[in-house]
Amino acid sequence: MIKAVIVGYGNIGQFTLDALKAAGDFEIAGIVRRDATNVPDELKGYKVVSELGDVEADVAILCTPTRKVEEYAKKALALGMNTVDSFDIHTGIADLRRSLDDEAKKHGKVSVISAGWDPGSDSVVRALLQACAPKGITYTNFGPGMSMGHTVAVKAIEGVKAALSMTIPLGTGIHRRMVYVELLDGYKLEDVAEAIKADPYFASDETHVIEVASVDDVKDMGHGVNMVRKGVSGTTQNQRFEFDMSINNPALTAQILVGAARASMKQRPGAYTMIEIPVIDLLEGEREDLIRHLV
Amino acid sequence: MIKAVIVGYGNIGQFTLDALKAAGDFEIAGIVRRDATNVPDELKGYKVVSELGDVEADVAILCTPTRKVEEYAKKALALGMNTVDSFDIHTGIADLRRSLDDEAKKHGKVSVISAGWDPGSDSVVRALLQACAPKGITYTNFGPGMSMGHTVAVKAIEGVKAALSMTIPLGTGIHRRMVYVELLDGYKLEDVAEAIKADPYFASDETHVIEVASVDDVKDMGHGVNMVRKGVSGTTQNQRFEFDMSINNPALTAQILVGAARASMKQRPGAYTMIEIPVIDLLEGEREDLIRHLV
Repeated sequence: MIKAVIVGYGNIGQFTLDALKAAGDFEIAGIVRRDATNVPDELKGYKVVSELGDVEADVAILCTPTRKVEEYAKKALALGMNTVDSFDIHTGIADLRRSLDDEAKKHGKVSVISAGWDPGSDSVVRALLQACAPKGITYTNFGPGMSMGHTVAVKAIEGVKAALSMTIPLGTGIHRRMVYVELLDGYKLEDVAEAIKADPYFASDETHVIEVASVDDVKDMGHGVNMVRKGVSGTTQNQRFEFDMSINNPALTAQILVGAARASMKQRPGAYTMIEIPVIDLLEGEREDLIRHLV
Repeated sequence: MIKAVIVGYGNIGQFTLDALKAAGDFEIAGIVRRDATNVPDELKGYKVVSELGDVEADVAILCTPTRKVEEYAKKALALGMNTVDSFDIHTGIADLRRSLDDEAKKHGKVSVISAGWDPGSDSVVRALLQACAPKGITYTNFGPGMSMGHTVAVKAIEGVKAALSMTIPLGTGIHRRMVYVELLDGYKLEDVAEAIKADPYFASDETHVIEVASVDDVKDMGHGVNMVRKGVSGTTQNQRFEFDMSINNPALTAQILVGAARASMKQRPGAYTMIEIPVIDLLEGEREDLIRHLV
């Protein structure tokens, strides 16, 4: 049994608890929350603490905001735990990998980074399609659906009480951001909208900010991806590939985090993105049996 | 540069030559043919031999019939070469892996087996979808396209001069077989059709046998796959995934063989199926650069 600690108990943390309970090879070592006295019913049977050091675990599943990942990962590695995260700032992945690679090797541990669905399982599909047809373009179209990373980024902006950032696919990898916000008293939509549009999460996309009375009333955690590649295998043109999914966003992220946590136990010390680990390592079950059923 | 030798120069061998020429990190060490005096124009610049031992290479790309793979792989491993193949008898994969794993370890070399598109890249998608939604069913629907195995089975039936077996997807992994035959003089379609339908390759599928004047005139090497999974992530139902491709069959097989040949250089000694190697290892290019572009 792999002992896992859930770090952060927001959306992803809650779905991670579900995924860990559904897996046959994990034991829940504990849950780390800022306020460890806040113990909802479903956590009653578990150790809830405010300090990671108070839990003994093989792997820490980081369900914190993306910007806290590096800090918590280093803390967990220093405590002798593997880490997995769903860090989702694409431009920061290579740097995070390098930083955690050093730290993981120093402690003889493993970090699997950016292990959600994009970056994450989509990255595996993208890499595979490039292997199938090395020349060509892959377009990843997201949505319509709620972007967790973008929503968190909006929530961090001054004056925002509640937020929802929806991603709308416009084709060929171009997206519109529809941001729904509730404002705190005394803030103006105009100023908040400006701050949102200047955030690196939004700066390069068409972004619309709309004030609503209740963000909760418009929230739906479904999401989708449509990935398309037309490319060349050898000298043969017009090889066509398409990948679609329609999913509950935090549920899939949590499921992949749990698979990555399992895979972390089988890698040599260092930091890895999903395309650097064998897919079979994500799966529960006996190796030869998986090969018989899946290959 | 990785020195590769192509073993067998039928359809797959020819497309493998194209894929190796298109890659920037391979050198073609030679081509092994039964009749080494048969040198078509496109092979004029290369070493064409009838014995694998006459070539010096890092990796042997086996483009032989599936049933010859094990024999040639063992020969290549004993000569100190890695091997890759597109062995496609699903029920024989685990045994081949075990047999080549021993042999590869004995010689400190690597075999990547069943590295075509199914088994092969499809296997990676199947394993990934199982990681995304561990409970559920994946249906792999093939076609419309030519089935090599079924075509060979028809050709073995008495009275058949030439044959083509097309696979038609009916959904949920059920297929119709459309068999086009040229008959030898003195044979009746009725009798041949009965023999084909009784063959284990066809006995459990809806099969139609049609006589044509020229099989060659209806042959097309395009193929397709539609893979569907509806499953559960954690406790969240109805997660939906779909993968489609429309491809030139031997061109994609050859491209994946070349990727697997590249990956063979990065694994520890032993035999691997595609789901056991990191997808990034299939790709040409600098690691961190690939991560920046694909993750």
